Amino acid sequence: MPENLPSSSVGLVRPAVMHFDEPLELECRRVLPKYDLVYETYGTLNADRSNAVLICHALSGHHHAAGYHSMEDKRPGWWDTCIGPGKPIDTNHFFVVSVNTLGGCHGSTGPATTNPETGQPWGPDFPMVTVRDWVTSQARLADRLGIDKWAAVIGGSLGGMQAMQWSTQYPERLAHAVVIAGAPKLSAQNIAFNEVARQAILSDPNFHGGHYYLHDTYPRQGLILARMVGHITYLSEDAMRAKFGRDLRSGRFHFGFDVEFQVESYLRYQGETFSRNFDANTYLLMTKALDYFDPAREHGDSLEEALAPAQCRFLVASFNSDWRFPPERSREIVNALVARGTDVSYGEIETDKGHDAFLLHIPEYMRLFSAYMGRVAEEVGNGPA
Amino acid sequence: MPENLPSSSVGLVRPAVMHFDEPLELECRRVLPKYDLVYETYGTLNADRSNAVLICHALSGHHHAAGYHSMEDKRPGWWDTCIGPGKPIDTNHFFVVSVNTLGGCHGSTGPATTNPETGQPWGPDFPMVTVRDWVTSQARLADRLGIDKWAAVIGGSLGGMQAMQWSTQYPERLAHAVVIAGAPKLSAQNIAFNEVARQAILSDPNFHGGHYYLHDTYPRQGLILARMVGHITYLSEDAMRAKFGRDLRSGRFHFGFDVEFQVESYLRYQGETFSRNFDANTYLLMTKALDYFDPAREHGDSLEEALAPAQCRFLVASFNSDWRFPPERSREIVNALVARGTDVSYGEIETDKGHDAFLLHIPEYMRLFSAYMGRVAEEVGNGPA
Repeated sequence: MPENLPSSSVGLVRPAVMHFDEPLELECRRVLPKYDLVYETYGTLNADRSNAVLICHALSGHHHAAGYHSMEDKRPGWWDTCIGPGKPIDTNHFFVVSVNTLGGCHGSTGPATTNPETGQPWGPDFPMVTVRDWVTSQARLADRLGIDKWAAVIGGSLGGMQAMQWSTQYPERLAHAVVIAGAPKLSAQNIAFNEVARQAILSDPNFHGGHYYLHDTYPRQGLILARMVGHITYLSEDAMRAKFGRDLRSGRFHFGFDVEFQVESYLRYQGETFSRNFDANTYLLMTKALDYFDPAREHGDSLEEALAPAQCRFLVASFNSDWRFPPERSREIVNALVARGTDVSYGEIETDKGHDAFLLHIPEYMRLFSAYMGRVAEEVGNGPA
Repeated sequence: MPENLPSSSVGLVRPAVMHFDEPLELECRRVLPKYDLVYETYGTLNADRSNAVLICHALSGHHHAAGYHSMEDKRPGWWDTCIGPGKPIDTNHFFVVSVNTLGGCHGSTGPATTNPETGQPWGPDFPMVTVRDWVTSQARLADRLGIDKWAAVIGGSLGGMQAMQWSTQYPERLAHAVVIAGAPKLSAQNIAFNEVARQAILSDPNFHGGHYYLHDTYPRQGLILARMVGHITYLSEDAMRAKFGRDLRSGRFHFGFDVEFQVESYLRYQGETFSRNFDANTYLLMTKALDYFDPAREHGDSLEEALAPAQCRFLVASFNSDWRFPPERSREIVNALVARGTDVSYGEIETDKGHDAFLLHIPEYMRLFSAYMGRVAEEVGNGPA
């Protein structure tokens, strides 16, 4: 944590755990008998409990979205750019709840936690969880926290899919859905990249069929490869060019398989770091949840029909250089909402940062997001003075 | 080979081998003492030896570009769409030479062939070869075949890079360079994808530091992953959507890690087939040759300067849905040539087929290619009657 903490930080935060003993029937028809959800909160719940917003994280995220866990912490939570006093999700106005998804690897029950029936880690026997299951579990957390209705459910990428799902699964329980850098479903290319990542993990000899915990190892190389592939899709071609170009690490060619170009060094390092901090079974589950998400599927492929139950208003935002979920994918959502006469604001942000832009401080994005959330804050009777 | 062979096929063909005893000094400063190049020819060399064209292959290609090797052969050579009687590279007019690159795995000397110094396969000790080295070796093959000057040097993708290299390395030895779906150098993103492919191979336990031949195995999983990543970049998003969409293999979700979507099945199958037919060390070498190619590098990053020695005329063609080497990359080449006053024809083909389009029968592409090659044929005094 920086010594001179800026006033826009939520400061020191601490995760909490909620235990659930009610069995959860999942979309895959299996039942999770009991489970924990780990979450953080920032800001203060107001008297009529109307100022709560839910943050849903993406593929490799977790509950720690803002602030610092200790004085020694070097980096704040993953969405600290957007959460804090004076930021788009302004903790002077909102009570922010950020939860690690079920099946995650940062405290919520997942493949690395103990299966009560066997006394061993769940591993590959952990049931497949879907966006719908996450939303169901988040609704139970809301019940426990005494939050009948969210002022907003907010997420980027896979988090945006959760916000969409909330709008139709519990239409009365949110006033706004904020879907950033999202898509109504994955494309064949998106699925293809996920499949490469999965195959990298599944074929790593240290994967041991998912039971690597029992072998005191983990599929390091598989995770590195999976992350490298993923990372390429998070950055735009322009961002990569701007960041690395064809810069050589040592200034000349070595004609060998060690790192020659800076971009190689960067990807290897990012992959290596990720492999130490993320559970492979969780990564597999998260990519499958992405693949499966397709609300229109049960409605004759009509997104308009799928979104029919939604009662909330929407902010949809996309980034022009995002080639993972390009603006056209967000416009599919917007068009389906507009066709139904739903109140939707849409912003397409100019940036060269690609998919990762949703995590970054991009002034035009901050203005759009702040303006929208400012109006949400006014509605909950807790607006700017 | 089909029973009723169309008259547009070159029919049964047989590879030839040329042995070279003259040491070849490579760009990496190492010397290859002797080597073989395997090649095929189609059509007839005319009396003044002026109708020869050279075909340069891409990353996973080889010398077998057209026709069939046996009556049992199910598929013709990789560029049979473009080579044969009446086709763009018309064997009624041209003597076509198609050579497997040095370092390849289809007969030319490469990592899988025996290192005369050790009596063992070269493996990872095979020297790094570059586009310049390939062109040098191809010029020696031309010498042996008695071809002083090619009517055209032709290639797609990495093959197009070889055609560009010919134009500056041996400016007097070609009349035309045909650069299809090419780029003047790889982008950071291109290098990043190559690096993922390399890491997949290098980290496969069956790679054995490149000495897998001695262990009677090969890095099957690494090659499968490398090919899967590559394959995604060869297809456009639209082509993938048209081909697979989100079609399920069995019609419903299974909530497991077996194949769910058709695109997964296709990629796994393609990767598996490739892994059985391609040498991993060659794949590594070819990706490095791609990374290193950057003719402007030694000319203050001026492509115009780099292309200054070229005396031939150019056909440059690109495909609008190619996101591996998009049209802008071809236009960089065209602009550099135009700035020098070089005679260049440029065609940007509308298709949803992505980078792979250069291999396919796309009418607009065939017309452009045929028209250009028809003029080349007329020049060699062997034009259409």
